[in-house]
Amino acid sequence: MTKLRVDIWSDIACPWCYVGKARFDKAVQQLDGKVEVEVRHRSFELDPHREPGDVDAVVPMIAKKYGISPAQAQANEYKLGDLAKAEGLAYRTEGRDHGNTFDLHRLLHLASERGLEAEAWKAFYIANFADEASVFERERVIEVAVAAGLDKDEVVAVLDDPAAYREAVRADEAEAAALGATGVPFFVIDEKYGVSGAQPTELFAEILEKAWGEKKPALTTINGADDAEACGPDGCAIETPPQA
Amino acid sequence: MTKLRVDIWSDIACPWCYVGKARFDKAVQQLDGKVEVEVRHRSFELDPHREPGDVDAVVPMIAKKYGISPAQAQANEYKLGDLAKAEGLAYRTEGRDHGNTFDLHRLLHLASERGLEAEAWKAFYIANFADEASVFERERVIEVAVAAGLDKDEVVAVLDDPAAYREAVRADEAEAAALGATGVPFFVIDEKYGVSGAQPTELFAEILEKAWGEKKPALTTINGADDAEACGPDGCAIETPPQA
Repeated sequence: MTKLRVDIWSDIACPWCYVGKARFDKAVQQLDGKVEVEVRHRSFELDPHREPGDVDAVVPMIAKKYGISPAQAQANEYKLGDLAKAEGLAYRTEGRDHGNTFDLHRLLHLASERGLEAEAWKAFYIANFADEASVFERERVIEVAVAAGLDKDEVVAVLDDPAAYREAVRADEAEAAALGATGVPFFVIDEKYGVSGAQPTELFAEILEKAWGEKKPALTTINGADDAEACGPDGCAIETPPQA
Repeated sequence: MTKLRVDIWSDIACPWCYVGKARFDKAVQQLDGKVEVEVRHRSFELDPHREPGDVDAVVPMIAKKYGISPAQAQANEYKLGDLAKAEGLAYRTEGRDHGNTFDLHRLLHLASERGLEAEAWKAFYIANFADEASVFERERVIEVAVAAGLDKDEVVAVLDDPAAYREAVRADEAEAAALGATGVPFFVIDEKYGVSGAQPTELFAEILEKAWGEKKPALTTINGADDAEACGPDGCAIETPPQA
């Protein structure tokens, strides 16, 4: 078949996902015309146990989590900012927020159903990592989702109904766990190769080419009932019943 | 991964596709909880060289095509009607039209992009095989597409622009040809098994179970750069730069 399926588990709050996706995209671009790729974004929450309204500033949160000084934590953000910039991505190194991303994932599943998956992931990444406004504010979330092409009423309805797409998010997370993924980004190429982390573009290109080369060229034909009940350019197979 | 991918090439004007899809759906239903299936409808025109406005009544068209009498052609339609009924499908055996389905396929691709693929195929099958009104009339096409959930302005825009989704339809047809499909319905299970025709439900169930059982349970892990640049529940891997 024509396209190589790539599942990418990520979180909007995950800087390595943001950077890794850009590196992956470059690999796909390098292989343009040689390898055709179809990406599916899958949900993974970094901080699933955090309460929805519980939002921290990134730098003190990191300092506390790693037991390092705020200056060290801030330096980490600068380093991430440099790596992001190296991939052509805007990155706001100061004043970012961190929170629960469950609602964002539910909206991202709505976007997938509406054919806007790539647009919505991109919009929320930029909103979280590059824009001034915090993506952990309801009005901002609605704004970003609508700018990505979603219908405002649908977005509000999903946000107002905690059950909407809950199972879809949970199913993605269960599958990640079943595949042994403990962190993100986690890439699965052609349901076959698992790649963890924001690997270099070259590695993504290599594995995409490998998987592409291995795609089965031919089908196994299943022989079923003797009379193939099918239609073709010459008409539909059907025996003419005896004349009455 | 969780779902078995099934590509189904069909035409809205193909009675065996209508019947075959119902038999396939029954197999999926029988396997509910055991096998998870994700269907993709693909385009195949039975009569691609017919002019868009050139619409025939089905019975005389079949009589002419097969060199049989109109009564025999009508008897074929009754037989198809009985087979459809056996699958729980409504089927209008008299007065149906036949024509070029290119515009329908272009709209079906729009529906796929909008997350309404299953709804739109079902709506157009019913409109063509069960309803009184001909599906080869522009206003009726718009009506059916909108009833399936599509936006009227988008539907009209696609109908008015012959290039919209043309390449998507052609790509489906080229792929069918490359896979050796000469008629429809043509099912491809998990990019692996090709099944031609409206086979019995039992055969679909058998092959779905077989393909499901063969799905690779584990991934090959690709080891990339030494430092996995990833985020997990314990935070994001990043070396703390030396204090300035």
